[in-house]
Amino acid sequence: MTTPTPLFSPFKLALVQLAVGSNKDENLKNARKNVLEASNHGANVVVLPECFNSPYGTSFFPNYAENIPQGSSVKALSEMAKDAGVYLFGGSIPERDESTGKLYNTSTVYDPEGHLVAKHRKVHLFDIDVPGKIRFQESETLTAGNWLTHITTPYGKLGLGICYDVRFPEMAAIAARKGCIAMIYPGAFNMTTGPLHWELLQRARAVDNQIYVAMCSPARDTSASYHAWGHSSVVDPRGQVVATTGHEQDIVYADLDPELLASFRQSIPLNQQRRHDLYCDVAENVEEHADGTVLLK
Amino acid sequence: MTTPTPLFSPFKLALVQLAVGSNKDENLKNARKNVLEASNHGANVVVLPECFNSPYGTSFFPNYAENIPQGSSVKALSEMAKDAGVYLFGGSIPERDESTGKLYNTSTVYDPEGHLVAKHRKVHLFDIDVPGKIRFQESETLTAGNWLTHITTPYGKLGLGICYDVRFPEMAAIAARKGCIAMIYPGAFNMTTGPLHWELLQRARAVDNQIYVAMCSPARDTSASYHAWGHSSVVDPRGQVVATTGHEQDIVYADLDPELLASFRQSIPLNQQRRHDLYCDVAENVEEHADGTVLLK
Repeated sequence: MTTPTPLFSPFKLALVQLAVGSNKDENLKNARKNVLEASNHGANVVVLPECFNSPYGTSFFPNYAENIPQGSSVKALSEMAKDAGVYLFGGSIPERDESTGKLYNTSTVYDPEGHLVAKHRKVHLFDIDVPGKIRFQESETLTAGNWLTHITTPYGKLGLGICYDVRFPEMAAIAARKGCIAMIYPGAFNMTTGPLHWELLQRARAVDNQIYVAMCSPARDTSASYHAWGHSSVVDPRGQVVATTGHEQDIVYADLDPELLASFRQSIPLNQQRRHDLYCDVAENVEEHADGTVLLK
Repeated sequence: MTTPTPLFSPFKLALVQLAVGSNKDENLKNARKNVLEASNHGANVVVLPECFNSPYGTSFFPNYAENIPQGSSVKALSEMAKDAGVYLFGGSIPERDESTGKLYNTSTVYDPEGHLVAKHRKVHLFDIDVPGKIRFQESETLTAGNWLTHITTPYGKLGLGICYDVRFPEMAAIAARKGCIAMIYPGAFNMTTGPLHWELLQRARAVDNQIYVAMCSPARDTSASYHAWGHSSVVDPRGQVVATTGHEQDIVYADLDPELLASFRQSIPLNQQRRHDLYCDVAENVEEHADGTVLLK
């Protein structure tokens, strides 16, 4: 059930490792400035970090939550995508579903005309408890999403997850086997899970699926309650980190090359070697829909 | 479909990174000497490398292949397991199935009484072609196995794969979800794939499944046609390398700790967080049999 990956055009990806504060308007302004800067540097696809318009914390989510698409952040993101002329992965924002009152950690994606083309609600909520290190329970205020998300662009199909979603290999496996050339994860690991697993998980998803993987973190703010790891990175289909940074505000650029992806898959032809007579194919019983959602048949 | 992992006893694992030459009797003698040494150092479970009784190469396999269990290597392995009083993962040897004439890359496992308790035939054959670096096609002379393998021991259930099998995450995911506490891979990566992926793949299997992962390589022999990477390693359920070595003959020891496995799974409870309403569970439709084989239902 592996969909042949169509040839895609080379493109420049930019990850905006944004410094996020408590003033939503300032966060949106800072995002706009950096998205335009990335575009000026030739980026075709720009990614913002998880929770880029709000501090990250369960107590903040209800106060910063907005309706999608009526809220001010969607309006601002649509404008910056259009003005920059880029595909924009708008990090994530706390979303309020007016009909149910439920809150989500939601990523919105825009085409270069500013149209909202996809919406991903974090599927795996970040509920962990490492004694003496970190306890965080998104489920205290958030609800999990109910679909996977693939986005068709002229540069190839791109899979989208949010942060903790990266720990679950099925999402990236499904994306790759359905023809996605990259997984994009806005994310905000912390000072415990960051050094342990931030890079490892990206490299694991890349090498197992022979795709590009990118994670975009907020910059670290030691005056905030949650200290993000930073280190926004791009990993190539061989599992090698090809672009990264420290923990300050920065923009990470990488050129994504269809030749590298194709030649590496030819050298080590995993897609033709899987033994689905011995184990099921996680991509077999899922279906992509026109709106970018991916669901079990 | 995640089987609760039963508590296991702490135990000492030893990986014998054996120097392998072209004389089968010498290889068996050297293996015996090192297995006894590992036992004297307190090892409870000892692992030999892939293709430990023969040089590694498709032209060698037909000449070194033996019947299992009638061949001399099984007899020698059974005796060394018994004399050392250990569970012995007998690396792998070229196997000839007399009834079909087919050849396999096969791992045999022995209990401390010397009984042959499991047989795993490499499921994913090593067929790669990295231009200018390495071309190797096991399928020129070998046939692939048709089952996965889990081995019940007093120390916990252990999953078994061989080398290239590690590139296919389904095998380790099934093992972990069926209650295995570790994956053991005799393997022989080379000077191209070794630096690229040997450590990454072990850490990926460990972190995604929260299990121990061990790979046991032959020592490097630069006078042979195939240059093994070496670096036999043990990775813990957090994805950290806890024991490793260079490329010379050596024995790598690690203590496997049930407390670490349990506490880490409690901190980051992946087993309770998977979204099998959105993607299938690769472990759901497989069945373990009394002889250690694991097959689709």
